[in-house]
Amino acid sequence: MRIYNFEDTTAEVNTDEMFMREALRLAQKAFEEDEVPIGAIIVAQNKIIGRGYNLTERLNDVTAHAEMQAFTAAANFLGGKYLKDCTLYVTVEPCVMCAGASYWTQVSRIVYGAKDEKRGYTTVAPHAMHPKTQIFGGILEEECGALMRSFFRAKR
Amino acid sequence: MRIYNFEDTTAEVNTDEMFMREALRLAQKAFEEDEVPIGAIIVAQNKIIGRGYNLTERLNDVTAHAEMQAFTAAANFLGGKYLKDCTLYVTVEPCVMCAGASYWTQVSRIVYGAKDEKRGYTTVAPHAMHPKTQIFGGILEEECGALMRSFFRAKR
Repeated sequence: MRIYNFEDTTAEVNTDEMFMREALRLAQKAFEEDEVPIGAIIVAQNKIIGRGYNLTERLNDVTAHAEMQAFTAAANFLGGKYLKDCTLYVTVEPCVMCAGASYWTQVSRIVYGAKDEKRGYTTVAPHAMHPKTQIFGGILEEECGALMRSFFRAKR
Repeated sequence: MRIYNFEDTTAEVNTDEMFMREALRLAQKAFEEDEVPIGAIIVAQNKIIGRGYNLTERLNDVTAHAEMQAFTAAANFLGGKYLKDCTLYVTVEPCVMCAGASYWTQVSRIVYGAKDEKRGYTTVAPHAMHPKTQIFGGILEEECGALMRSFFRAKR
């Protein structure tokens, strides 16, 4: 039983890493477009149904975060506005706005990479998420964080 | 001096009521389209530069709140993504998502109508707003709240 659980957990971690790599690829795209490098995808039944990366500069719109675009894309794909059986993968811990949006989508699960100590929802608004949403941080944390650090280092 | 201040305050309240009436007109539009009846406008130098009303049903998108659309419209109008010298008028207290978006816009002032005891940001995430944003609630509270109550009564 113990081994079974262990294998099961490993499989899930690998799937999470695989999907987080896709979110990272989108974050890299943001980086190349001189946007704060954050990427996000929505997964349902192991299929990617929504993608987004930060476009606040290009769209001249502070609401154009990676998660917001991924939510809208996934809802369009599903033809329904709730994401109850979906997972959001995002390279950086969601901000308050995106946590508040997650609440409305009722997304089942959120997996994020690097922590955002300053503007992450856990610091500013720890009760922002839906109580039924399961949240896991730290997947590919080092890579997700390194991309952010390298972006802001270049800006200084 | 006292009289001058008094007159000044009255004038501001009247301006706030005037703009809130426009937000209410948009909320009424939402009501007629069978959307949760919330309306919002952004005002800069006494001019309306952005409008929005709740379209979550029509757009099939939980992020399509009145405030989010007004923010995007105002940023488009200004050609800049910050709303530092602007006021947001919204018929109902912003939710956590919209409060988080307000933070990013750095909007100077928020005037809302009715309180949202359940999902308003003051209940769920009191630190979500930008510390420099001045916030006033209760303008045309009765009318803004009555529209909401009448919508949800009809839904039951």
